[in-house]
Amino acid sequence: MSRCRLVIHGGAGVIDRASLTAEREAEFRRALHAIAADAYARLQTGATAIDVVENAVMALEDFPLFNAGHGAVLNADGVAELDASIMDGATRAAGAIAAARTPRNPIQLARAVMDRTEHVLLAGAGTDRLAAELGLPQVGPDYYVTAERAEQQRLAARLGKVTLDHDAVFNAPSPSDKTGTVGAVARDAHGHLAAATSTGGMTNKRVGRCGDTPIIGAGTWADDATCAVSATGHGEYFIRSALAYDVHARIAYGAQLLMDAGRAALARVQSLGGTGGLIAIDAGGNIAMPYNSEGMYRAWVGSDGAVNVAIYAN
Amino acid sequence: MSRCRLVIHGGAGVIDRASLTAEREAEFRRALHAIAADAYARLQTGATAIDVVENAVMALEDFPLFNAGHGAVLNADGVAELDASIMDGATRAAGAIAAARTPRNPIQLARAVMDRTEHVLLAGAGTDRLAAELGLPQVGPDYYVTAERAEQQRLAARLGKVTLDHDAVFNAPSPSDKTGTVGAVARDAHGHLAAATSTGGMTNKRVGRCGDTPIIGAGTWADDATCAVSATGHGEYFIRSALAYDVHARIAYGAQLLMDAGRAALARVQSLGGTGGLIAIDAGGNIAMPYNSEGMYRAWVGSDGAVNVAIYAN
Repeated sequence: MSRCRLVIHGGAGVIDRASLTAEREAEFRRALHAIAADAYARLQTGATAIDVVENAVMALEDFPLFNAGHGAVLNADGVAELDASIMDGATRAAGAIAAARTPRNPIQLARAVMDRTEHVLLAGAGTDRLAAELGLPQVGPDYYVTAERAEQQRLAARLGKVTLDHDAVFNAPSPSDKTGTVGAVARDAHGHLAAATSTGGMTNKRVGRCGDTPIIGAGTWADDATCAVSATGHGEYFIRSALAYDVHARIAYGAQLLMDAGRAALARVQSLGGTGGLIAIDAGGNIAMPYNSEGMYRAWVGSDGAVNVAIYAN
Repeated sequence: MSRCRLVIHGGAGVIDRASLTAEREAEFRRALHAIAADAYARLQTGATAIDVVENAVMALEDFPLFNAGHGAVLNADGVAELDASIMDGATRAAGAIAAARTPRNPIQLARAVMDRTEHVLLAGAGTDRLAAELGLPQVGPDYYVTAERAEQQRLAARLGKVTLDHDAVFNAPSPSDKTGTVGAVARDAHGHLAAATSTGGMTNKRVGRCGDTPIIGAGTWADDATCAVSATGHGEYFIRSALAYDVHARIAYGAQLLMDAGRAALARVQSLGGTGGLIAIDAGGNIAMPYNSEGMYRAWVGSDGAVNVAIYAN
């Protein structure tokens, strides 16, 4: 039986089921299915977990309806600032970027921080300099902007609100577009784990605001000994709960099962007032995808090799 | 008996004992003693742990021989970029700034992120904008620079090295000045815990590089249920070990004692190749100050109310 496992997500949120049209839902499902199928095929042909999660997150970034890369939400200045991180469970090597403005694929630049610098986290203008030095693809600010994201930001600014991309508290022109952060976790044929996460953050956020996504231990964690985790939700609460590392710690020190650890870690976020979800795979190949919002865009491949897609609980 | 406890640090490093002159060592000891005595007196008169750690770290930032605020080390462009974070164990509220260039006291701006914004972490130019909006003291780049830091950066750049401020691998003009990150942890008269950390990072670091100091869960953690932790050392390894949260998790899920948890967490950093140390106080008022470098500048006040200062093991 294959050791390969894969989970991807496109954000958790309070997507009002009634407002998500059948056509739009089908579009989300097609994208999630195609990206998961491709990633799993790569794992099956021997690709490493770290390469597969990077590649899957690049594809999720390129899909305009998710809040990462092209289609990212806009900050209070109407500009996209991107956060991303990646971690290799085999070595605990990690790379991350925060408040970056030019990488075409933020996760690719996070991987470059991991592989090609002495550092783990770069923020702000330094990320643009690294991308230029290494010759990684860079884009102008218009690349990230879709018409719907621009309208969301104008509306949020008018209301004076900082909103989660999937937050339904204001009457956005097209609630079904308020999808979230993207991420991927994988176990490869060698049994190695990896995790990657990427986001545009919150609509109308303050310039320079970083959520949990670029924080190793909050939005992303991978350790072959325990699990790989990618989180999505209201980042401030996830940072204040060290969410991704908390799942690891509950397994490592509390001998909890992955699903129990994931649910308990999320309950701790909720006790502070935070909503969201996470995807995780443990060393034994178990999968957990708990969330405390109405839905979470997700796709996964378990031991049977079949690609599954879900948005709501059922 | 007073519940008040306090520990401060001025960085861990491989300070060559022979190269630290008696006069310079006395200068460090006087500063550590005065700052610890003042902070403990505030605790004794009812000040909260969160106010006391902020205030103690401001004093450490103002002391030019420590690598934080005035006297911070310089990046590859010869400019100081400051990281700081603070966390209140009573509420798990937290604030942090990364790669900031203008706050006179970085920890004060991190506290403002916690108290006066919806966010936890701001990076880069956004930190300057917040400081300006709130009217917090800002300074020009020359404020941070001391002649010795400028010489360290020129030397590191010539050798093409990124060095820890306290790293003895290159022949700095004055090795005794290569002191580190600063931090404070406290338990107040009400039993609440808090932690704060501030740094200039590594000499000749890449522009935008963030270490563990601005990362809640890596450089700083506080939870009344377990402990308050402030770390110092080679930040990349501390991030990849979620050092501060790891101490918490070992207590919360593994029922470890504070000293065992601190040592084990640091051993995990060391297994990756990282050196440094941490200071911690637990809910019961126990103190731990483990480090795996030659020395750590530190001062503490335990149950007897006496101010102690140490640099080396003895």
